[in-house]
Parts: sequence; C-alpha cells; structure tokens
Amino acid sequence: VVLNSDEGGSIGTAQIQLGMKYDARERRFAVFVVQLCNASVLPLPLDEKIYVRVAVLPCPQTTSCLFRTRASIPQDKLEFSEVFGVSVSLGALRQKTLRVDVCYIKTSGREECLAGAQISLAEVSSSGEGSTQWYNLLNNKCLAEAGTE
Amino acid sequence: VVLNSDEGGSIGTAQIQLGMKYDARERRFAVFVVQLCNASVLPLPLDEKIYVRVAVLPCPQTTSCLFRTRASIPQDKLEFSEVFGVSVSLGALRQKTLRVDVCYIKTSGREECLAGAQISLAEVSSSGEGSTQWYNLLNNKCLAEAGTE
Repeated sequence: VVLNSDEGGSIGTAQIQLGMKYDARERRFAVFVVQLCNASVLPLPLDEKIYVRVAVLPCPQTTSCLFRTRASIPQDKLEFSEVFGVSVSLGALRQKTLRVDVCYIKTSGREECLAGAQISLAEVSSSGEGSTQWYNLLNNKCLAEAGTE
Repeated sequence: VVLNSDEGGSIGTAQIQLGMKYDARERRFAVFVVQLCNASVLPLPLDEKIYVRVAVLPCPQTTSCLFRTRASIPQDKLEFSEVFGVSVSLGALRQKTLRVDVCYIKTSGREECLAGAQISLAEVSSSGEGSTQWYNLLNNKCLAEAGTE
C-alpha cells in the first residue's frame, strides 16, 4: 500500500451508520445504531469484541443517557440494528451533542473507547422523519496527539 | 434559575458558527471560524483569553492541519472571522473529521481545551458552495465523565 502524504486516513476509515428521529408528540429522541464498516482498521487487541456506546450529552444526573449495544467480533460490516431512546424536550435536545464511541472491555475490566463520532444536535430535525447517515470515526489517540503539536 | 432534570444543558450551551467549503479545482478545503456565542458558560478562569483550535484529522505528519485563531476575552458574541485552509483531495477529505475546540493557555503554558465540536466530513459537499452552521460545543469534562458511568 502506497500512502501519499495527502491521503492520510484514506486507506480506510472506520465509519458508523446512524439514524436519528425526534418524536414531538412523545417528546422522545431515538438513536438507531445501524452498522459499522471498516472496523478492522481500529487498534483493537486480537479476539476482543467491540460494541457501540451512545451518549446524549450533557446528561442530567437523574436520567439515563448512556447506552451500549451488544458486543460482537469485528467484521468488515458489523450490523447492530439497535435503537436507544431518551425523553427530552426539543428545546433541550437542541442544546445537546450525541457522542458515539466504539469500545471494548479490557482484561482489567475497564472500558476502553477506540474511536468515535460526535454530532451536534443544534439543528436536529423536528419533522419526525428518521434518516440514516454515515459518520467517520475518529481514532481517540489521534485526537489526543493533535493537542501536543 | 430553575433547572428541570429534563433540561440539562438548556440554561445555555456555548455554540460555534462554522463554515466549510471545498474547492475542487484548487483541491483545497477551507474552514471559516465565524463566531462563538454563549462562551460565558465555559469553565474558564477569570481574565483568561480564549481562542479556537481547528484540526483536520487524521493528519499526515508531513502536512499542517492544526490551526489557531487569535485569542480574545470571552463575550456573549465573540467574532473571529478567520479562515484556515488544507490542501487535500476530496476522497481523502471524506475520510477525515473536523475537530474544533475552544482553548486557552494555562499559566503553566500548557494548552487547555474546554469544549469542542467534532464534525465528520464523510458527506462533505463538493459543490464548492460555502454555508455556515451553528454547532453545540460539548464540555470536554462532560465527555470524560460519561465514560465513568
């Protein structure tokens, strides 16, 4: 594989397909975790299962806003088809950010998140129509290194 | 101020207005840092100036992809109107993520980033039309705490 300096990241970026839907009548925001692709580029130790962690942030302490899918062995296409919901007004939702991470459980029992996407909900649609979109997953290590330049 | 548990974050979220434009002929991606609003809600020590750090990630080591605006005293509306550009093919760009953070320099000289937005460029427009959008800034502390639940 030849890497042009211009093409950093282009030999394959892990991506996640997500759907979002706001139900105004039920005042409920739903996040659909559809699937992952290219998960094999993530720096995962051998034989570990990965899962997707979804957080709707900031999160009031009294409510639940952190969810996890089931864990699976990584494949090029990894389907989850899981839905998570949060009860929230549209006004509050539009001040929140959806954070989605691909994580695994280390042998120490600690959760380690490898890469993630973060989606501002400032302009989330209130029409109630659900649509899915692919998002690039940014390696968390890459983010930490950016700060040291 | 009365905070409903439902409304976490709704007493004011810092937001950033950004523009993005890909020039296919010049193979150049431009990021416009327009302005910040509600910066006063960020956990900034008194009398510190803030600036916006823009990173196009992942970043090949041979190129520059980390930029900083000038630093200013926080106000409710803080205009920057600065533009940063990266030379990159559209294919490579669509595997990248734009990370934008509001930072300050601590008395130790270290850069501290308070809050940020992260925007997947997987579906960035190639039409060359620049449009601006508001993004919620997620407190970085909030993100770290989510992992400890």
